Amino acid sequence: MNLSNIVSIVGAEFNGKDIEITGMNSLKDATKSELSFVSDLKYIKDIQNSNASVILVDNNAKEYVPEGCIALVVDSPYMQMAMLSKYFAPAIEDDTLASAEIGEGSVISPKAELANGAKIGKNCTIMAHVYIGAEAVVGDNTIIYPNVTVYRDCKIGSDCIIHANTTIGSDGFGFVTNKLGEHTKIYQNGNVVIEDNVEIGSSTTVDRAVFGTTLIKTGVRIDNLVQVGHNCIVGEHSVLVAQCGMAGSTTLGRNVVMGGQSATSGHLNIAPFTTFAARSGVTKNIKDSGKTFAGFPLMEHRTWLKLQGKIAKLLK
Amino acid sequence: MNLSNIVSIVGAEFNGKDIEITGMNSLKDATKSELSFVSDLKYIKDIQNSNASVILVDNNAKEYVPEGCIALVVDSPYMQMAMLSKYFAPAIEDDTLASAEIGEGSVISPKAELANGAKIGKNCTIMAHVYIGAEAVVGDNTIIYPNVTVYRDCKIGSDCIIHANTTIGSDGFGFVTNKLGEHTKIYQNGNVVIEDNVEIGSSTTVDRAVFGTTLIKTGVRIDNLVQVGHNCIVGEHSVLVAQCGMAGSTTLGRNVVMGGQSATSGHLNIAPFTTFAARSGVTKNIKDSGKTFAGFPLMEHRTWLKLQGKIAKLLK
Amino acid sequence: MNLSNIVSIVGAEFNGKDIEITGMNSLKDATKSELSFVSDLKYIKDIQNSNASVILVDNNAKEYVPEGCIALVVDSPYMQMAMLSKYFAPAIEDDTLASAEIGEGSVISPKAELANGAKIGKNCTIMAHVYIGAEAVVGDNTIIYPNVTVYRDCKIGSDCIIHANTTIGSDGFGFVTNKLGEHTKIYQNGNVVIEDNVEIGSSTTVDRAVFGTTLIKTGVRIDNLVQVGHNCIVGEHSVLVAQCGMAGSTTLGRNVVMGGQSATSGHLNIAPFTTFAARSGVTKNIKDSGKTFAGFPLMEHRTWLKLQGKIAKLLK
Repeated sequence: MNLSNIVSIVGAEFNGKDIEITGMNSLKDATKSELSFVSDLKYIKDIQNSNASVILVDNNAKEYVPEGCIALVVDSPYMQMAMLSKYFAPAIEDDTLASAEIGEGSVISPKAELANGAKIGKNCTIMAHVYIGAEAVVGDNTIIYPNVTVYRDCKIGSDCIIHANTTIGSDGFGFVTNKLGEHTKIYQNGNVVIEDNVEIGSSTTVDRAVFGTTLIKTGVRIDNLVQVGHNCIVGEHSVLVAQCGMAGSTTLGRNVVMGGQSATSGHLNIAPFTTFAARSGVTKNIKDSGKTFAGFPLMEHRTWLKLQGKIAKLLK
Repeated sequence: MNLSNIVSIVGAEFNGKDIEITGMNSLKDATKSELSFVSDLKYIKDIQNSNASVILVDNNAKEYVPEGCIALVVDSPYMQMAMLSKYFAPAIEDDTLASAEIGEGSVISPKAELANGAKIGKNCTIMAHVYIGAEAVVGDNTIIYPNVTVYRDCKIGSDCIIHANTTIGSDGFGFVTNKLGEHTKIYQNGNVVIEDNVEIGSSTTVDRAVFGTTLIKTGVRIDNLVQVGHNCIVGEHSVLVAQCGMAGSTTLGRNVVMGGQSATSGHLNIAPFTTFAARSGVTKNIKDSGKTFAGFPLMEHRTWLKLQGKIAKLLK
Repeated sequence: MNLSNIVSIVGAEFNGKDIEITGMNSLKDATKSELSFVSDLKYIKDIQNSNASVILVDNNAKEYVPEGCIALVVDSPYMQMAMLSKYFAPAIEDDTLASAEIGEGSVISPKAELANGAKIGKNCTIMAHVYIGAEAVVGDNTIIYPNVTVYRDCKIGSDCIIHANTTIGSDGFGFVTNKLGEHTKIYQNGNVVIEDNVEIGSSTTVDRAVFGTTLIKTGVRIDNLVQVGHNCIVGEHSVLVAQCGMAGSTTLGRNVVMGGQSATSGHLNIAPFTTFAARSGVTKNIKDSGKTFAGFPLMEHRTWLKLQGKIAKLLK
């Protein structure tokens, strides 16, 4: 999209030379042809290091935009970003793309739907009522059970198993709320990448990233009815037990275990080999690897056991 | 159904003039052609104001039925209501209805199924493996992602987005249990109405009402794996975060936020602009608007923080 | 599979007469043509009574294998069992089986998929986008709503209702982890049996057994978004409320009620007529029937109420 169009959509002023903007991204991840935004003053320090060619800012943040980077001044950069995100959303399906490619030895049910632009590797099994979206990619030897939906642009590796009724790549839960309490959708223009040798249970949901990628690394095991929020990273060989949930942008190191019905809040970093007992509520970063936690608020498992002893005494 | 048939199904006595009964409903909502019931003595006060033409009662409640309203006396009105509900259930599909109507500009996947009697508005996208039931209605510009099921008689507004594998209008969880512990289904003959500009995530379930309507109002945002029980009302612009659940007949005011994995019990009223933190367990009405709660049992969020301090002290 | 093949897969030594092994099973349930394994020294007492013809053991357990039973000595019997389980897994679909049988009066949507070898009873309704796997059986008068997936070999009784997007028989969550933290899948070669007059809500998941059967008995009511782990047994007329979960191999007696968002850990036995309040976390056996429990850790409901009183006092 041309910068001149963007300027008119967000209602900013700009009189420089028109340029092509290829996408939107966070300050940290934006490339030289992308637009970014400052949603909060706490991100001001990221402006200096951003490669974005254009940044949406309000009057307070304007002065921090370095030379060579175009500042578009708007009332509410976060809201303007949400409005703009719609224009960067690709079509859900695209008939101008070539028919789906199917690798040798793969068995595709006639009742599955492969959108144009999808690519299926070799020796896959794609069962009835599966949907694989535009430009989605499935590796070799992967089995996708009935009624699974894979949204456009998502990638599933080789030797994976995805069980029935699971959704890969539905929109992350993102919106901006105005003073009247009304919500404007932030289009989720990122994707999901699932690496090799991952097994995912039934009726699990893995949301696509707002920008960039929600990433499930090699060897992960995810059970049924699990929620993985947008922009999460699940480390190699991690185990997510049934009905647990991860809020957006949380990163698990390798071999993290999340017990049944446990949950994390967003934007956390969890050290490798951490174990969360069933029902744990994780609201803080875990820096030391190899420990076991429980409870909500979260505490070390041995502390939690001690607390149960205290409570038992209280009841006597 | 004729009253004479009803009388013979429930095993009551009645010798008056036969009349046509068009449906069943609660005492409060029944219209003049409908039948109602008194399941518990605490509802006796509602009998006086009911417009129902016929009421199932036991011997104790019989005397409260006003003149002009027909009392059918049975052993167990709640069980008899359950048995009767089956006879008022419409066919799941109905081939005598006209083929589905599709508005101009809508794109319907050949692998979607629109039951006879369904109506799709203009410029909608209905993707593969979607099912839209008999006499269900979808407004304009609405996107329904793959593998969504919309049961018969449900209504989805304009400018809505429903993500993959979500179910709108499956039966509410209703049954009557006899002394042997066996359950008799209460057929859920109501529907779901979703107003305009609502977005619902993947693998979420919104149950149809037993009578009347489960209502999701304008501008609501519902995340993945959320359960909305029968006869709930979710107020305008409310936000239901992943894996939260609402038991039946609870009403949220506008702009209520339910955090991840939070839950309400049934038959509650929640004031507008209430926020429930993640994992909250809501078991009581909230009358004052604008407050934030946490915990289970529920308490104000600042009290919950204080409690965590006390627990930390207990552990030292 | 021939024993000689098994020996070469697991890397054991055996010089006796080759025999046919028809399957794998636990020590307790193995029949005379089956292979079993000792995953942990605590199961040594089960070896004596096992009918298995072949048992995978390590050097420590070897001496407990009785005469007439073949001991295959391997480094890690549990890991070798996992590797072997793949070879006993049947094909997901099998074109050499006869076309699905459909009983008189049943209505099957042209957009449903019945795999070869499936059998549907009389007067059933199988709706669009349903998948019924190979050798799966559905009884009479059963209604299966859109987008339900029933995996191969599973059995659903008569007079059942299965709501949309539910999965019956996806793989239980089973794997063995090596010292590097990598997981090897234990193929789940058992099935799910649902007896008569069972109703299951939408987006619920019932996992198939690793060996044997995950069993839902007559008259059970299961709500939406419920997880039933592999090898669970749910007793007659039990009630599982929305978003509750059962870890593997737990047995509920008849008329157990699990409240919303409650959960059990695995390998438990719960007495008949036990009630678990919403959010209960059940981690121990319940021996006395008819009691009500709450909380996590679990306590009798009246104790839980007392605890809430103590906490309220603490806050004053």
